Amino acid sequence: MSQPQNPKQAGAIGEPLSALDTPCLVLDLAAFERNLDRLMQSVADTKVAVRPHAKSHKCPEIAKRQIARGAVGICCQKISEAQAFADAGINDILLSNELVGSKKIAAALSLARQLQARSGQLTICVDHPQAAADLNHAAQAAGLRIPVLIELDVGQHRCGVADPRAAVALIDQVHRSSGLQFKGLQAYHGSAQHTRGQADRQAAIDRACHLITRVQRDAAALGIDCATVTGAGTGSYLLEARSGVYTEVQPGSYALMDVDYGRNDWGLSDMPVFENSLFIHTSVMSRPDDHAVVDAGLKSMSVDSGLPVVFGRPELVYQKASDEHGVIVASTQTGQPGQPGQPNELVGRLPALGQTVLLVPGHCDPTVNLYDVLHVIDQGVLIDVWPISARGLLF
Amino acid sequence: MSQPQNPKQAGAIGEPLSALDTPCLVLDLAAFERNLDRLMQSVADTKVAVRPHAKSHKCPEIAKRQIARGAVGICCQKISEAQAFADAGINDILLSNELVGSKKIAAALSLARQLQARSGQLTICVDHPQAAADLNHAAQAAGLRIPVLIELDVGQHRCGVADPRAAVALIDQVHRSSGLQFKGLQAYHGSAQHTRGQADRQAAIDRACHLITRVQRDAAALGIDCATVTGAGTGSYLLEARSGVYTEVQPGSYALMDVDYGRNDWGLSDMPVFENSLFIHTSVMSRPDDHAVVDAGLKSMSVDSGLPVVFGRPELVYQKASDEHGVIVASTQTGQPGQPGQPNELVGRLPALGQTVLLVPGHCDPTVNLYDVLHVIDQGVLIDVWPISARGLLF
Repeated sequence: MSQPQNPKQAGAIGEPLSALDTPCLVLDLAAFERNLDRLMQSVADTKVAVRPHAKSHKCPEIAKRQIARGAVGICCQKISEAQAFADAGINDILLSNELVGSKKIAAALSLARQLQARSGQLTICVDHPQAAADLNHAAQAAGLRIPVLIELDVGQHRCGVADPRAAVALIDQVHRSSGLQFKGLQAYHGSAQHTRGQADRQAAIDRACHLITRVQRDAAALGIDCATVTGAGTGSYLLEARSGVYTEVQPGSYALMDVDYGRNDWGLSDMPVFENSLFIHTSVMSRPDDHAVVDAGLKSMSVDSGLPVVFGRPELVYQKASDEHGVIVASTQTGQPGQPGQPNELVGRLPALGQTVLLVPGHCDPTVNLYDVLHVIDQGVLIDVWPISARGLLF
Repeated sequence: MSQPQNPKQAGAIGEPLSALDTPCLVLDLAAFERNLDRLMQSVADTKVAVRPHAKSHKCPEIAKRQIARGAVGICCQKISEAQAFADAGINDILLSNELVGSKKIAAALSLARQLQARSGQLTICVDHPQAAADLNHAAQAAGLRIPVLIELDVGQHRCGVADPRAAVALIDQVHRSSGLQFKGLQAYHGSAQHTRGQADRQAAIDRACHLITRVQRDAAALGIDCATVTGAGTGSYLLEARSGVYTEVQPGSYALMDVDYGRNDWGLSDMPVFENSLFIHTSVMSRPDDHAVVDAGLKSMSVDSGLPVVFGRPELVYQKASDEHGVIVASTQTGQPGQPGQPNELVGRLPALGQTVLLVPGHCDPTVNLYDVLHVIDQGVLIDVWPISARGLLF
């Protein structure tokens, strides 16, 4: 066995999972590959393209495997993130987000030139006349023509143009900008992803499609074709794929999954089941009488969407996170966390000092962003270590 | 001006803050240095040593400035974190945490040997007989003698020994271990740090001192001196420093501060006022009619202790964070966030597209851990970029 290559690598290739240093981020390769296959199979009878969102994993090795299965390219949220994927060989990138400021525009033009030189492309979203004008002027000065989508606010009330008349005016502006090339609409309904009930999600996507078709119709009256309509995430993508309106879907979390997505009622009988493939491998570092303390806390996972779950151990409850610690208690037979001073038969379920458990993070995206490497496990053994190349790239 | 050195550096030395790329982590040097000075002044009339906790900042440049002002060394929570500080020249490190597992023990012995060779030391906490035995055997095999503290659970109910008889038995075991050198007690009351009222914090520290003196007395009956008693954080350190029981305090957040610590009622009239010196510099990337979207979300700050506050702009409320976005609304005159469709005079307070604001993070420690570099600002200008060398070092 070779020695670990860097201080963030938890063990040598060939070591069993149980021997890896803790805490570390691990990927169950078989579950991950099943997720990739199921996603592609689930849209095989539609005409939509699949452009997975790389913000979830920030890992070029994952993007390459998504593209090898038929994805047309990837989405990124940040221009520095996109640069990292381009440097790793990804050619077709949609920045599914607004880009404002001279430094970001300069970085985007540099990346666009790099990708166009190898027959790839960088597409950028715009939701404001000033942002469109700034990008156009810079592109003209650089002798470039940048593909652009107008972002619609289809219900999330975050970025995007909500008013259809304002959207068509912006489409017209971009269409007439010689440094820009109008390609269509970005229409991501973020809040629909975590809407628990399937019927509510369907209603949200129906409303999105209503706005999109209104904008398409009004743009067509000006002779402008909104050819691309892209959006959707893991929680709703099958609805967009079957809408007849969207041409492309952008699921991200499906490859890794997390506790929060696991709470959705998927509803559709033919919706694929995505498995947890992403885990935090952690060990018990302290064992007071009535609880176990593991070495994975707030710096090992994001708790914005709730605490992690102990994988395959329903008798254990991860009850509290502090910066470097997690407190695990034994659950009662009703599934509730035990209390201090609980009966001994519950305490007996707790893992011993030094034993390891796997945690499913509450929210995969910001959890992956804490780690520089992903430990790839196949049949219980570390077979590869993939750099999370875009970790911490925030510009 | 020289060009930025790496893709995570937001600008060149000499650029004004307003020109730095966003989002980025910035340190107000003057406020930071005032915090360091005030901490040392506040304990000048006590006999306690100051050993700041480096888990808060993970930045050797900060540790060096703390030591230059009289700190005896630093605390770390992870052995890999301690290694990063040792590699940067820090000589006296307390691992204020338990260390379990053969890989961690091997890393600790290697670091202990490195520090002892330059007249420094690595001290390690133990709270379990098996952990003490494992560390002792490994140290004996390596021909080393490792300074050890026994961690008491003085009220946090996380790690540590709560029962005084068990604590004394473990002290006795360590005292008789030829690979270990018993030094005293780790007695950090974590939950007292965020107890809002000063009287409640005083009561918590009084109870901690009661347990410590009981253990000291029982150990003394065996002829063992608990010479070192170390603990405390920013929220309570003046109480420990004045207790007559603690010999050393471990504040960390005081250098940077955050929204959560800002909520404490400090109570003591002579408690120094620590200022916010740590900020996220972020810009408005989308400006729908009734809100502003900034480019700092869950990957730019930890929200485990609540959302960030817009610094110096009480009329603005950071209302919602998603992975790469933050939604800011204008507050009403009562200080409550406005609602969608709010009157125009409130909307007029919102920053324009491209404008920047500074955010105070809810919780400094896990926020710093998201960034690889800290941008040091003095009089509005970037004067230095300090590596956050221990970022993501979790082992």
